[in-house]
Amino acid sequence: MEKSGSVQLSATVPSSDVSRRPDTTNLVVNCPRPPSLREKLVNMVGDVFLPPANGVGAGRPPWWTWVLTALQFLFPVLKWGRSYSLKSFRSDIMAGLTLASLGIPQSIGYASLAKLDPQYGLYTSVVPPLVYAVMGTSREIAFGPVAVISLLLSSMIEKIVDPAADPGTYRGLVFTVTFLAGVFQISFGLFRLGFLVEFLSHAAIVGFMAGAAIVIGMQQLKALLGLTHFTNNTDIVSVVKAVYSDLHDDPWHPGNFFIGISFLVFILSARFVGRKYKMLSWMPSISPLLSVIFSTAAVYATRADSRHNVKIIRDVHAGLNQSSAKLLHLRGPYTPDCLKIGFVCAVIALAEAIAVGRSFASIRGYKIDGNKEMVAIGFSNVVGSLSSCYMATGSFSRTAVNFSAGATSTVSNIVMAVTVLIALELLTKLLYYTPMAVLASIILSALPGLVDVKEAHSLWKVDKLDFITCLGAFVGVLFWSVEAGLAVAIAVSFAKIIVHSVRPQVEILGRFQDTDTFCNTKQYPMVGETPTVLTARIGTSFLCFVNANSIRERITGWVDEKREEVRSVVLDVSNVVDIDTAGLAALEGMRRDLASRGVQMALASPGWRVIHKMRLGQLVAGGDWIFLTVADAVEACLAKV
Amino acid sequence: MEKSGSVQLSATVPSSDVSRRPDTTNLVVNCPRPPSLREKLVNMVGDVFLPPANGVGAGRPPWWTWVLTALQFLFPVLKWGRSYSLKSFRSDIMAGLTLASLGIPQSIGYASLAKLDPQYGLYTSVVPPLVYAVMGTSREIAFGPVAVISLLLSSMIEKIVDPAADPGTYRGLVFTVTFLAGVFQISFGLFRLGFLVEFLSHAAIVGFMAGAAIVIGMQQLKALLGLTHFTNNTDIVSVVKAVYSDLHDDPWHPGNFFIGISFLVFILSARFVGRKYKMLSWMPSISPLLSVIFSTAAVYATRADSRHNVKIIRDVHAGLNQSSAKLLHLRGPYTPDCLKIGFVCAVIALAEAIAVGRSFASIRGYKIDGNKEMVAIGFSNVVGSLSSCYMATGSFSRTAVNFSAGATSTVSNIVMAVTVLIALELLTKLLYYTPMAVLASIILSALPGLVDVKEAHSLWKVDKLDFITCLGAFVGVLFWSVEAGLAVAIAVSFAKIIVHSVRPQVEILGRFQDTDTFCNTKQYPMVGETPTVLTARIGTSFLCFVNANSIRERITGWVDEKREEVRSVVLDVSNVVDIDTAGLAALEGMRRDLASRGVQMALASPGWRVIHKMRLGQLVAGGDWIFLTVADAVEACLAKV
Repeated sequence: MEKSGSVQLSATVPSSDVSRRPDTTNLVVNCPRPPSLREKLVNMVGDVFLPPANGVGAGRPPWWTWVLTALQFLFPVLKWGRSYSLKSFRSDIMAGLTLASLGIPQSIGYASLAKLDPQYGLYTSVVPPLVYAVMGTSREIAFGPVAVISLLLSSMIEKIVDPAADPGTYRGLVFTVTFLAGVFQISFGLFRLGFLVEFLSHAAIVGFMAGAAIVIGMQQLKALLGLTHFTNNTDIVSVVKAVYSDLHDDPWHPGNFFIGISFLVFILSARFVGRKYKMLSWMPSISPLLSVIFSTAAVYATRADSRHNVKIIRDVHAGLNQSSAKLLHLRGPYTPDCLKIGFVCAVIALAEAIAVGRSFASIRGYKIDGNKEMVAIGFSNVVGSLSSCYMATGSFSRTAVNFSAGATSTVSNIVMAVTVLIALELLTKLLYYTPMAVLASIILSALPGLVDVKEAHSLWKVDKLDFITCLGAFVGVLFWSVEAGLAVAIAVSFAKIIVHSVRPQVEILGRFQDTDTFCNTKQYPMVGETPTVLTARIGTSFLCFVNANSIRERITGWVDEKREEVRSVVLDVSNVVDIDTAGLAALEGMRRDLASRGVQMALASPGWRVIHKMRLGQLVAGGDWIFLTVADAVEACLAKV
Repeated sequence: MEKSGSVQLSATVPSSDVSRRPDTTNLVVNCPRPPSLREKLVNMVGDVFLPPANGVGAGRPPWWTWVLTALQFLFPVLKWGRSYSLKSFRSDIMAGLTLASLGIPQSIGYASLAKLDPQYGLYTSVVPPLVYAVMGTSREIAFGPVAVISLLLSSMIEKIVDPAADPGTYRGLVFTVTFLAGVFQISFGLFRLGFLVEFLSHAAIVGFMAGAAIVIGMQQLKALLGLTHFTNNTDIVSVVKAVYSDLHDDPWHPGNFFIGISFLVFILSARFVGRKYKMLSWMPSISPLLSVIFSTAAVYATRADSRHNVKIIRDVHAGLNQSSAKLLHLRGPYTPDCLKIGFVCAVIALAEAIAVGRSFASIRGYKIDGNKEMVAIGFSNVVGSLSSCYMATGSFSRTAVNFSAGATSTVSNIVMAVTVLIALELLTKLLYYTPMAVLASIILSALPGLVDVKEAHSLWKVDKLDFITCLGAFVGVLFWSVEAGLAVAIAVSFAKIIVHSVRPQVEILGRFQDTDTFCNTKQYPMVGETPTVLTARIGTSFLCFVNANSIRERITGWVDEKREEVRSVVLDVSNVVDIDTAGLAALEGMRRDLASRGVQMALASPGWRVIHKMRLGQLVAGGDWIFLTVADAVEACLAKV
């Protein structure tokens, strides 16, 4: 806001006459020019569109090497496949079968959460995992439908089309959203926009997942209580109201509840036993499938569906999935909504997959390439959307199972997909009598893994603002809607960055006795301040319009407080990575403010871009007030007095 | 996004065994606790609600001293009034009369820009300046109606109520907006929200003012061409269309154009002459008044109003302004709109007043208190809105005139106000025949001062992003609407901060030979890198969710590039002022990543809040990998190898 004149004035302001060590000052003032905006853009574009250089040696490689490298880049399976051993294959088969036994009942349950027929869940456990297996870089991720994305899809799409009234259009929109989300994911990866996913901070994800878990759990009340009417809203108030009025109006069917709770207890006990006894560690992964088998057999044997009103799945369409390319709504009135929903789902899906992929890669000591991963996930979803699959991503719970079952590569995903495919061909008839309540209990049993109370507590302890982000996401999802929770979390996260930038971060420095080390006097109370020299450090890395004036006012305020003593001010700007014109004006204004009080200002260790912009703004003025280090500047000031 | 485990894991990770200087490390790890969020909030609230301490000596002061201090705080006139001399008074009278001669025609012109009757412009030159005179802290500001605010008011309010169809309601809304803007301004000042005004960066203001000047100029075409129909839109396309169709449909009246252009030439020549010859420096300030007198006399003498269709002001309501308290729409359907418009106007008015106040205070070598200034401006507007005045603020052009006419205090505002008051009582009848075109030429003559091409050029040269902000505001105002221009400018400004935070700012450091000074190897190509130790500095001051992971990946990437050589990584985090849980997880993850490659990580000079949060997250783990300075860390690493 400082009137512009200051930038021009500088050259005419008499330059200071602090004595100095000319060698270092010259170094500072005459350093090379940093890369310009244009050079950086050109570099970035080159990075995106040129093939990766790794793998290609020096000299001009033959064309087939280039093609091979590109193919290996796109399909990592070509790289690790050559060294794949029989032993790894045996581990992967075991892991894949375990995954399938967990994945089949989960997929059916998640399909019902997404308000789709059961077979679509199974389809989604076939095609996307196969695509991911040849393109993905993570060795542990179990790919397929997940709870949170299923909830997100249904809660957002049913606001456009009611799945009960018009299931065909609803399904078409689900595929459209999946397709668009895949396209978004591919473009994030290709254009290196992976940082967009970082905008969902870990704290936001913790709160979001916990809220989503509770919302998903509440949705299971419908199946668990055998209710016929339910609400399309996901917030906790609407759901509790709907359940209450439903129980009030209709008689409820305790058979559903009984089945659901019994198998929930069974699954949870299996998990407990599996953790306690190493011998039985396969129990938790197999218990959902056992629950399905037992409950189906029991319903069939007792005819509970007609006698006790136990709701069952009924027909599951058998056979391979069909092409859904013609069902996509890529033009028409729904497209803008689908684009929005697709964007949200794309980001959430990537956030979940990359978080889970990174954490397991970190345990095994390798690095996954976020951008490649996004392309792989995006392709899986695009191919999936064309073959009757809805959105898939890396699942938190199944990835952990895959890891502990000893998966060594994405082959376990292939084994899982093939198993599900066989089940689709042969076993769907057997699912006719499977009670809905047991699906609900399988979904419920997976939810505790999404609620991380310990982490929320640690957020509270370490960083209150992060806790508020987490709480905002949680409360938003729970009491408003899933998208609102996300919006709150992102808004709080960004507010945090803005607030950090606005705070006038300046600290007074003191010298450690007999050293050239200057530190914050509050952090290190033992350091000594030089009486006639006020040494201050600007803490912000971007001295810009939101903070420049308050920093200027704070420093002149300090000088005014102890006017008699201070003869010079040394301003350590080593932290300032970048500066804008308001920042330059504030620096120059500060120099003038101090000069009008008879105080000399010296600048210590300006960064690359700062000194460059000062040169552009003609603010270096001979450079005899600019020093390489704080110690140099203080010495020069002391020599002067 | 890093899985939470990392924060907890840390304590169990075997601590490094780098040899070290225990004294400085202990200092780092055991520094005192920084003030907590609660303590900071308590401090802030205390600052706001306790009376200022300055002026009150040690010991418990008697109550009347306290009251006097508080009064002096609210009314600075009580402080400087006692030392006010006759000589200053003489200068202030001269400056005040100059201001009045310039202000009377300008006020009438600005009132027509605000689509109000002429007397309201004059009222606004009486009451608000009087209030500001006793409360303001700037000695140079000339208070009253200004062009940009007049345009803003009319362009935003006429979207709610058409001033031609329902002038009464329109006027009521103008007073309501003025009242609410005043309340906003007072609360900004009281709650120290002055930083809100900083959000309008200097670059944004340059672009906004230039765009507004052109828009205001275009609006003058109506009076200058004597058009009857005109558009309510302010964007350049609508205005050009309206002018074109108007000239096409109706015959135009060249008399208006002739008068307007002649007096515009007269005023501009007077300015030129005044600048050239010191003797005639009073010419520019007096020329608008002279134009009014000559043109009125000419129209009266030639009867040009009826003969040549020259548009004239006609009746100006004589006498004092009346209370408008009953006209305020503080409840009802218009209130939400008024609140929004009031907020926008409040911020723009403050931005203009504080920018102009600061730049002249800086020339005279004193400091104005932004928060006090906001309270003063706010009170002026609240009182104004209750006495038929519209929004006033510090005027760019008249403040410069006030300064060069030798004003020494706000008394010149009082003199100006009294003069305008006398004119209101006695001279309004004489304005009957004043042609509208001469008002247009007076407004036009003030516009070049708002367009600062030189500053825009300097923005382009020094900082491209600032130039884009400026251009965004300019284009937005010109082709869309005044508010849109503001919104664009603010959006670009904030995007700048976010982009800065997202960039992974890490640089490799090297040592200046025979010193302990480490600097960026690209900025200072002569520094030497230690072969086995990679020294890197994190540039960002807030290591948080948007940048932590990319910084982690970049550093591990560097280590992977030269895997053979690097034995340890020294990470200089002195720039990191604050960190969130994602940042902590990234630091810990980096340590694990590097450990899995057999590379030791050492942290140098963590800031106050960083080390505190690391302690809270139990990440210090014995502290033997944390050092006070980069040199300490490097030496420890070298000793180890």
